[in-house]
Amino acid sequence: MDKDLNEHKKHLKGKTPGQSEIEMTQLVLPNDTNILGNLLGGQLMHWIDIAGALAASRHSNKVVATVALDSLDFRHPVRLGEMVILKARLTWVGRTSMEVSVDVYAENMKTGNTILTNKAFITFVALDDDGKPTEVPPLILETEEERRVYKEAEKRREYRLKRREKE
Amino acid sequence: MDKDLNEHKKHLKGKTPGQSEIEMTQLVLPNDTNILGNLLGGQLMHWIDIAGALAASRHSNKVVATVALDSLDFRHPVRLGEMVILKARLTWVGRTSMEVSVDVYAENMKTGNTILTNKAFITFVALDDDGKPTEVPPLILETEEERRVYKEAEKRREYRLKRREKE
Amino acid sequence: MDKDLNEHKKHLKGKTPGQSEIEMTQLVLPNDTNILGNLLGGQLMHWIDIAGALAASRHSNKVVATVALDSLDFRHPVRLGEMVILKARLTWVGRTSMEVSVDVYAENMKTGNTILTNKAFITFVALDDDGKPTEVPPLILETEEERRVYKEAEKRREYRLKRREKE
Amino acid sequence: MDKDLNEHKKHLKGKTPGQSEIEMTQLVLPNDTNILGNLLGGQLMHWIDIAGALAASRHSNKVVATVALDSLDFRHPVRLGEMVILKARLTWVGRTSMEVSVDVYAENMKTGNTILTNKAFITFVALDDDGKPTEVPPLILETEEERRVYKEAEKRREYRLKRREKE
Amino acid sequence: MDKDLNEHKKHLKGKTPGQSEIEMTQLVLPNDTNILGNLLGGQLMHWIDIAGALAASRHSNKVVATVALDSLDFRHPVRLGEMVILKARLTWVGRTSMEVSVDVYAENMKTGNTILTNKAFITFVALDDDGKPTEVPPLILETEEERRVYKEAEKRREYRLKRREKE
Amino acid sequence: MDKDLNEHKKHLKGKTPGQSEIEMTQLVLPNDTNILGNLLGGQLMHWIDIAGALAASRHSNKVVATVALDSLDFRHPVRLGEMVILKARLTWVGRTSMEVSVDVYAENMKTGNTILTNKAFITFVALDDDGKPTEVPPLILETEEERRVYKEAEKRREYRLKRREKE
Repeated sequence: MDKDLNEHKKHLKGKTPGQSEIEMTQLVLPNDTNILGNLLGGQLMHWIDIAGALAASRHSNKVVATVALDSLDFRHPVRLGEMVILKARLTWVGRTSMEVSVDVYAENMKTGNTILTNKAFITFVALDDDGKPTEVPPLILETEEERRVYKEAEKRREYRLKRREKE
Repeated sequence: MDKDLNEHKKHLKGKTPGQSEIEMTQLVLPNDTNILGNLLGGQLMHWIDIAGALAASRHSNKVVATVALDSLDFRHPVRLGEMVILKARLTWVGRTSMEVSVDVYAENMKTGNTILTNKAFITFVALDDDGKPTEVPPLILETEEERRVYKEAEKRREYRLKRREKE
Repeated sequence: MDKDLNEHKKHLKGKTPGQSEIEMTQLVLPNDTNILGNLLGGQLMHWIDIAGALAASRHSNKVVATVALDSLDFRHPVRLGEMVILKARLTWVGRTSMEVSVDVYAENMKTGNTILTNKAFITFVALDDDGKPTEVPPLILETEEERRVYKEAEKRREYRLKRREKE
Repeated sequence: MDKDLNEHKKHLKGKTPGQSEIEMTQLVLPNDTNILGNLLGGQLMHWIDIAGALAASRHSNKVVATVALDSLDFRHPVRLGEMVILKARLTWVGRTSMEVSVDVYAENMKTGNTILTNKAFITFVALDDDGKPTEVPPLILETEEERRVYKEAEKRREYRLKRREKE
Repeated sequence: MDKDLNEHKKHLKGKTPGQSEIEMTQLVLPNDTNILGNLLGGQLMHWIDIAGALAASRHSNKVVATVALDSLDFRHPVRLGEMVILKARLTWVGRTSMEVSVDVYAENMKTGNTILTNKAFITFVALDDDGKPTEVPPLILETEEERRVYKEAEKRREYRLKRREKE
Repeated sequence: MDKDLNEHKKHLKGKTPGQSEIEMTQLVLPNDTNILGNLLGGQLMHWIDIAGALAASRHSNKVVATVALDSLDFRHPVRLGEMVILKARLTWVGRTSMEVSVDVYAENMKTGNTILTNKAFITFVALDDDGKPTEVPPLILETEEERRVYKEAEKRREYRLKRREKE
């Protein structure tokens, strides 16, 4: 379906995933936590969305809107006073939409221990000044890993499109 | 796997989904929006998580933590000054975890038009005072619709458990 | 004074109080509390005002501004981690202004106990795009209770107007 | 009723209203406003409550809780970017409760014009470390004006107590 | 260098430092603190900047932007629940820029003790509606103290300009 | 004065500046800006302080408190919707205190242009669980650049100590 994807935007200069990568660090403050002192899941989703949007915006040089969030697991509680590090990186690019992976790490300041707490995939669409979807530059894949990640993103996209059809 | 689920907690009095249902209303303020005046996806996720957590907490009478968020689509931009209504309702209950559906509506104050913008499914776990998972009351299903919703939640759960195994 | 009130806006279709009713739910987070862990009175007033404004805005399909808040008692401390439920409902409608009652309930998540903590009455004025007062639809009263509430609102209004004259 | 009020707390050293007076200044930021760029009534109430609480806390050297807010009019819209000045001053002191008046001024930075936008009266109760009401120092009245203000506060208090009895 | 400073703006009416002085009071809330319950240095800087900007804006009747912050020491921890009082006052005025001193006091509500915690000097520039620097009224010095403070501000300015040249 | 600095903490394992480096990314949201849409200086200081504190905390594995901020210039306005990137890196370590440099970049999402807007130096002290200063690991300098930066930090420290003596 997207086979001629790179045809129609030869005029847009491609970028590698590394060129738009984002690292975001947050300190877990009291208002981010529940009464047990654990980071609220929704606050973390908010940070994931912003980190992802900044990477997509950096790739496209456009304002972007969130289109879809892939299913997301929360495996480790994150505590008040810990540091959260979010690494956002483009995995796939369509005509107007982009998928970004956001890896979330929590670091305990006292022990220095770091754990991977979440791995999120979010899709954004680039918007022009009237809020309409607009073309984005192609993604230049340079490594085997980047090509593997791209294929997995394509599968997630197909699965997502099928799911929407069913509804 | 959960076949004797209701056996071991006969001591916990069951509740219907209606008994823990939550309605939350939010006004979209400037800081919730991007420079086009659209609601940030992550801010909406934050509200979805809190609405869901309140329903799960009301069912279990416990503090709860977010365990998993099912994939989520954002189909309509929500604008600055609009009203967002979130309806959270339990769909499924395990030994210590609960799935909640959160339907999100955006209402334009000037036209009175309301649209369903998102349909989210989140799983929470009930925690005791030491932050350990603890048993929750059974869910009493009274209508055909509630039984249908329960079965779909079971499928989502199986799919989610399989996905975790693969990783 | 408002006897021909419904004359001049026959063109505006009336609504019942039920059509603009708002239910808002809030979780009491750390930053909403003082050092004893009790909800700040002013934070609660902020929520009351927004819930009331949303109901008035829903009735009038206009942006609204707060005109007056009736005296308000705080009888029960609300605690960190509790859930606050606000129910806003129109009680009275003038040419450009509307009175809304906001009932506030606090629910302890662990015990499931709910108490009515406040009963507020706020008056809003509907504004057009230039920020000038503009007409609002009539309020259709259907039940005895709604008519009783309307009469009490009229008394509060008269008392309020007298008080302003004295100043 | 409070005739021996000053008897039982001879051990607490009295203070004048001037000794606990508070001046608070706030800049109206985007998130404090509605889509017309006017300050939200509830945000202003939040500031009024905090200014009043700080004065009451300074008089009593205790944490205080909001007990009642007298009826409050909003006569002038306050705009984004304006400066809000709140002056809080004790008017009346009982055994464990205190009334504070909060005068609110809005100043337009460009014209330098200042208007009195609100005049609020709030009652607070002093709390000990267990959250129980505790005695506060007497209020030393030095000027005619302070005595006049004190008498008006007493009337508001009687009116408020009667109103509560009726409910 | 600024010797003819007052020449070119005879048309702008001068003001004394007292005419633009600002007093700002803040309550230290949970989200302003770290996990030891101490006020975050950066939150205090935020308040210092706003207090200073309001004084500069009041002097110039313009929107202002922060140009430089002089070095700043934090000598005393400020605790959750304490009251912070900021006093901002113009010390020096150039053609389009103004220096403001901000004295910061922390008051413990329980003991009534107040300490001077910081003494900050910030320079602001007045901006016209296009965001370009614009002339500000002269500063009228009336007391010996004001003249002494003005001379010290001039030294800080010279030091600051030299430092920028070196870079 | 600190000549035996590394003597008394042989038991603490040193770290390089790279091991505690922090990259923090922030999106400029409406509430971070003034009415011209420019980032508030104080909001930027708040981010600088948190980025610096996270680096100091990562080096020392302790909670840290801000001790001093070196003078700071703001040369370029940062706009609503732009991305702010903060890079914090240890420059100098004493017995219980650490200096961190924070370089601030603003990136315009539409043009992709990035400028260095600020270069801040902040000193933090490491605190034990009672809030008392506590020893920190030595800083291992590996490059010429790191040694040059360290010497400049020492000069700033001496200048700062002299300035405090004079007061």
